[in-house]
Amino acid sequence: MTNIAILGFGVVGSGIAEVITQNSEIIKNKIGDEINIKYILDLREFPDSPFADKIVHDFNIILNDDEVSIVAEAMGGLHPAFDFSEQALKKGKSVVTSNKHVVAEKGDVLLKTAAENGVRYLFEASVGGGIPVLRPLGTCLAANKINEINGILNGTTNYILTQMIDFGKTFEVALKEAQMKGYAEANPTADVDGIDACRKICILAAIAFGKLINPSEVSTVGISNIRLNDVKNASEAGYAIKLIGQAKDINGKMSVSVAPRLVPNTNLLSKVDDVFNGILVNGNASDDIIFIGKGAGKMPTASAVVADIVDIAGRPEIKNQQWAQADKNDLVPSDDVVSAYYVCTTSSEDAVKSAFNEYSALSLKDGEFSFITPAMKKSAFNEMASKIDVISSFEIL
Amino acid sequence: MTNIAILGFGVVGSGIAEVITQNSEIIKNKIGDEINIKYILDLREFPDSPFADKIVHDFNIILNDDEVSIVAEAMGGLHPAFDFSEQALKKGKSVVTSNKHVVAEKGDVLLKTAAENGVRYLFEASVGGGIPVLRPLGTCLAANKINEINGILNGTTNYILTQMIDFGKTFEVALKEAQMKGYAEANPTADVDGIDACRKICILAAIAFGKLINPSEVSTVGISNIRLNDVKNASEAGYAIKLIGQAKDINGKMSVSVAPRLVPNTNLLSKVDDVFNGILVNGNASDDIIFIGKGAGKMPTASAVVADIVDIAGRPEIKNQQWAQADKNDLVPSDDVVSAYYVCTTSSEDAVKSAFNEYSALSLKDGEFSFITPAMKKSAFNEMASKIDVISSFEIL
Repeated sequence: MTNIAILGFGVVGSGIAEVITQNSEIIKNKIGDEINIKYILDLREFPDSPFADKIVHDFNIILNDDEVSIVAEAMGGLHPAFDFSEQALKKGKSVVTSNKHVVAEKGDVLLKTAAENGVRYLFEASVGGGIPVLRPLGTCLAANKINEINGILNGTTNYILTQMIDFGKTFEVALKEAQMKGYAEANPTADVDGIDACRKICILAAIAFGKLINPSEVSTVGISNIRLNDVKNASEAGYAIKLIGQAKDINGKMSVSVAPRLVPNTNLLSKVDDVFNGILVNGNASDDIIFIGKGAGKMPTASAVVADIVDIAGRPEIKNQQWAQADKNDLVPSDDVVSAYYVCTTSSEDAVKSAFNEYSALSLKDGEFSFITPAMKKSAFNEMASKIDVISSFEIL
Repeated sequence: MTNIAILGFGVVGSGIAEVITQNSEIIKNKIGDEINIKYILDLREFPDSPFADKIVHDFNIILNDDEVSIVAEAMGGLHPAFDFSEQALKKGKSVVTSNKHVVAEKGDVLLKTAAENGVRYLFEASVGGGIPVLRPLGTCLAANKINEINGILNGTTNYILTQMIDFGKTFEVALKEAQMKGYAEANPTADVDGIDACRKICILAAIAFGKLINPSEVSTVGISNIRLNDVKNASEAGYAIKLIGQAKDINGKMSVSVAPRLVPNTNLLSKVDDVFNGILVNGNASDDIIFIGKGAGKMPTASAVVADIVDIAGRPEIKNQQWAQADKNDLVPSDDVVSAYYVCTTSSEDAVKSAFNEYSALSLKDGEFSFITPAMKKSAFNEMASKIDVISSFEIL
């Protein structure tokens, strides 16, 4: 029997308890062992829960119980989640989590601590919720040089964009509806401003390239400035605007960014709608691989956490991957990243012609001229764009 | 250093050698070990190949060399591929393969032999080519009860169907073009009649449900009877016809089948076109997860084989999953499987009304009436359909 403790009895934490209970037979058949929830740490009491007798309020009870070999951290936030995880690892307990905040900020430290203590730190649920993507990226694609990852990594923003694209709603209206449906939080900043997607692309990049870039160093643009006119222009030209987390290998250096991008209709990511996430991984041998599924939600996320628990219960001895911290030399300056751009301007086509020389016109309406540029460095684009009055501009995927 | 031998220097075998050579640095970084190709078994000589000095013609040289710890079987066909694999496992060598024929017919035997000899038998490349799907299904979704798998598992037939759907070509014309482009073989039976897809869905079902059903017991319908009229009727009604391998859990029993099915446009599998494969897995906690990528091709397939090699080189000691043979009691009789049906008939709508009572009319043209039935058991459908003159009928996904 493998004894585990769950930290936090919120949405994900209670989902973990449910998945373990509901699928106990299946899990037992897989690993020939039973998973027993010994403790659930939460500040609150849950007298009506079937797990009421597992609730404890003091982390030290878990930490000092040698019978607990795996800790599932589902608290969210950086502290004390990081501290509890570190302490558990140092006590020889493996840790699993869905907490992208901790993994993106401190994953390198915790992977090192895990290795030093002969235990494991796994976080499949931190990216893509229930979609298996981190483990396949690290194992099934192990024989590949990863060239590029592009991901729709945040369900809330994808829902909002789908409402704008399919039903012509403005960003403000779509956001309000997402909040009413419970897809977006009262304070939607982490989703809408791309912060959540940024943490996730940092984690994906670390697995692909072995180096963890701090989210604060990643150019991150959210979706709040996308106008309905842009959505329509893009759509008429055969693109869908999606919030894309991108990690690229450019001549051995990393380029990591989050921004709304125009995804051509020929790319299946353009069809990943509503709260679904989609991650496209390009390897030098595998070519394009796409993973699609619900990127959030209680049960999908919990099922990924429990899969990590099952993995550790079945084989506690495997070496974790290690990450170095990315430094300036590992990164491509964002000015040097090459892309084609969609631009909407109030300037005349003549002004555009003289600023950009080459371009493909998309539309002229309501005094707005929109066009697509050839591929060029961001620095070159910024210089050319400064010569006209730009309303909005997005990279083309 | 891990020494391996490759059996067969055809498309996949030479791809394996190329991936190992090309990505040797990346592989070394992953596992802290080097993969060395010691032998390549083939009846032919390859004097101009960079691997010419590795070629041997006698399997016993490989079998009796204790330095070889992993054998990559890329011969294709059941014999002698199965026999060589079994002998290698019995000699304490792990075996990896892309050979779906062997895995679907003899996977249970080889997994058992591997376990008995403390080595591993892996076959990620046997389904979906370079798409990571078997390992994620077995590990990342381990905490799920798998309800259903639906897969576009054969690139050749998907290419032909895409040509029919998008360009209005007949089956015969599309097949001829696929042969000219090298996507279909001169004898296209294994692809066109669904035999290849059948082997793959048997492997997926075995991983999901732990029981291997022999391909000969699986109801398998190919694509050669799909008419352009059916494709058009389906398209106008919001469906794409795809060759779908399906494995379902119905009250604890398995239902496995291969047939052309109408996939609604709201299902992303309907957008998986050309030579791409797509596999949709529904778990009771994860909900729908979709894996998409190139299901064939030298480098994608080879990259999956090499990932298995890397996995074993990094951790030779993990227990393999074991499969039982499925018997009659494990299977749902195909007559009992419930589905809605698309039907095209030369009978009058009155005759349809009296045979089916309920239905949704799709179109009446060229003397053909097409309609969709409510969901019903196959036995009930067959009885009703026997009262009219059916030109074609397909299940709706």
